[in-house]
Amino acid sequence: MALALSLGRRGQGQCFPNPAVGCVIVREGRIVGRGWTAPGGRPHAETRALAQTGEAARGATAYVTLEPCAHHGKTPPCAEALIDAGIARVVAPFDDNDARVSGRGFAMLRAAGIEVTTGVMADEAGRDLAGFIMRNELGRPWLTLKLATSFDGRIATATGHSQWITGPAARRAVHGLRARHDAVMVGAGTARADDPTLNVRDMGARRQPVRVVVSRRLDVPLMSNLARTAKDVPLWLCHGPEADAALTEAWTGIGARLLPCGVRAGQMDMASVLGELGARGLTRVFCEGGGSLAASLLSAGLVDELVGFTAGLAIGAEGLPGVGALGLARLEEARRFTLIETRDVGGDVMHRWQRSRS
Amino acid sequence: MALALSLGRRGQGQCFPNPAVGCVIVREGRIVGRGWTAPGGRPHAETRALAQTGEAARGATAYVTLEPCAHHGKTPPCAEALIDAGIARVVAPFDDNDARVSGRGFAMLRAAGIEVTTGVMADEAGRDLAGFIMRNELGRPWLTLKLATSFDGRIATATGHSQWITGPAARRAVHGLRARHDAVMVGAGTARADDPTLNVRDMGARRQPVRVVVSRRLDVPLMSNLARTAKDVPLWLCHGPEADAALTEAWTGIGARLLPCGVRAGQMDMASVLGELGARGLTRVFCEGGGSLAASLLSAGLVDELVGFTAGLAIGAEGLPGVGALGLARLEEARRFTLIETRDVGGDVMHRWQRSRS
Repeated sequence: MALALSLGRRGQGQCFPNPAVGCVIVREGRIVGRGWTAPGGRPHAETRALAQTGEAARGATAYVTLEPCAHHGKTPPCAEALIDAGIARVVAPFDDNDARVSGRGFAMLRAAGIEVTTGVMADEAGRDLAGFIMRNELGRPWLTLKLATSFDGRIATATGHSQWITGPAARRAVHGLRARHDAVMVGAGTARADDPTLNVRDMGARRQPVRVVVSRRLDVPLMSNLARTAKDVPLWLCHGPEADAALTEAWTGIGARLLPCGVRAGQMDMASVLGELGARGLTRVFCEGGGSLAASLLSAGLVDELVGFTAGLAIGAEGLPGVGALGLARLEEARRFTLIETRDVGGDVMHRWQRSRS
Repeated sequence: MALALSLGRRGQGQCFPNPAVGCVIVREGRIVGRGWTAPGGRPHAETRALAQTGEAARGATAYVTLEPCAHHGKTPPCAEALIDAGIARVVAPFDDNDARVSGRGFAMLRAAGIEVTTGVMADEAGRDLAGFIMRNELGRPWLTLKLATSFDGRIATATGHSQWITGPAARRAVHGLRARHDAVMVGAGTARADDPTLNVRDMGARRQPVRVVVSRRLDVPLMSNLARTAKDVPLWLCHGPEADAALTEAWTGIGARLLPCGVRAGQMDMASVLGELGARGLTRVFCEGGGSLAASLLSAGLVDELVGFTAGLAIGAEGLPGVGALGLARLEEARRFTLIETRDVGGDVMHRWQRSRS
């Protein structure tokens, strides 16, 4: 199952709106097939593993990281494929909480005389598939917030100079994180200040994540790297209802996709933004700031995971803060995150936190 | 030698102005004596190890973490004691850079026919004895700056609420760090806002570090925990030349020691402050903020080691910054520190950095 989970993770960021599933087929103690959800979401992990296995599947055990699908979507159901191949036993972490599957995949397998075991490595699978599960349950994607700061929590000097606070290894780790998410998101301020491309570089040829810019008034220059590359890599702009019609037309013309979202107390309503992104299939979104967007997400309680990179320099109190105003009076009002991991990444501290369950 | 170094570290913070030295005596592959500088600085490590060893010292090897002293100070020279005990060989990391010893201890040993080996674990010993070496070379103590912040670099909410950002394990680790320094230092703002005692709690009965408060105008309340305990635990106040005479008298009256220091551009000149502390024997100073004092020390390039504790919550941009204004325009102007260690301390991230050698 651990191997199946690690195969599954290969598909993260590559197959939304489908889950990144892994499958290992074992017969008489030997691995006879391995598969994971293909880029774009099809074929599914089970189909790919079975294709490798061939006749050896008869009487074998299939370890899958999610309940095999039972519905005819764009592919025939995987439960059917497992039955047809002669699989004797299926091991899975838990039931698929997708309403179209939920228990029906297992029921189909059991009806065909296949032994089904669930509850294996459910915590690990829950973490790996958190985005898919969250979209099914709450209609929004899993949100990871990245903060690359000086050790005093600044993301740029007062004059906006920010290249580079962290070292090459940390920046490369960020590209790895981008590649494992369906989309990369920034606020308009960051889009203007840094003129980023927000693509994945030097990680091998992979599907590029969708670039999402949150800008109430669409005040991002049309002469930017994002605009220039909008035909090659998806660019989605989340804007408020008052965005200028000429601007929406111009952006649509260069290939961007426009998502009108709600506004709340004069700011973009981040619950509405994430709801729109979920409705369009995103399961994992990687937010790279800036400070105002980070603050909006934190205030709304929409940050599921935090990844910090802390560099060995101080920028001082005039520097740009990594998190904008939150309006807290007392510490008890702040949401606490639980530390998952900390390590040295090329001389910077990487620290990963997840929302505390309370 | 590794054992001798770990014994030596037991004396850190306990024996200034003396170095915290360790000594292990080995005969025929067996440890026959162990010692480290006693609290208060006397007896020395070698004397204590020899006292344990007795007759077994004849023909034995002594591992000492610093060149044995050769001068008659408050104790007879250790080199003499080693000779008298019949030690055959002495192993040490490097020459003592104290002008009163420098090479004379080894010369004395060699003249008596003892084999002397140096250069063993010199890097490690250099780190452990950095405060002693720095005071000898530059006349100032080693300075460790501690920052316990939210992950966005804040030390309190806008209303000054700061208890507690980090958890009990991190706070206990801070007491351990205090115990290993000769003095704990804070600025007047922190002394006023937190009314701290700055002592070492729950670490066993040990010598308490000197409490140092940097306050140009001595504007720390006389009805504070620091003032109340000034008779029991040393309290040193570093102030500017314009401090009120009635105040200096009042503080002296309750048992505090006053250190007039220089002022530069309207602020306490931290080089002068550390020079005064070095002149009074301090070898290791642990600064616990606040933001202005941290900024002054960083600006002046006087921070040798940085210890960060990062907690899993955001306070937001209105919160009190851990480092005050530094006046940097570009990142190249910031001093870089080298990451030494990072780990999970009870759910907070502990990260330790040292000044980069350039």
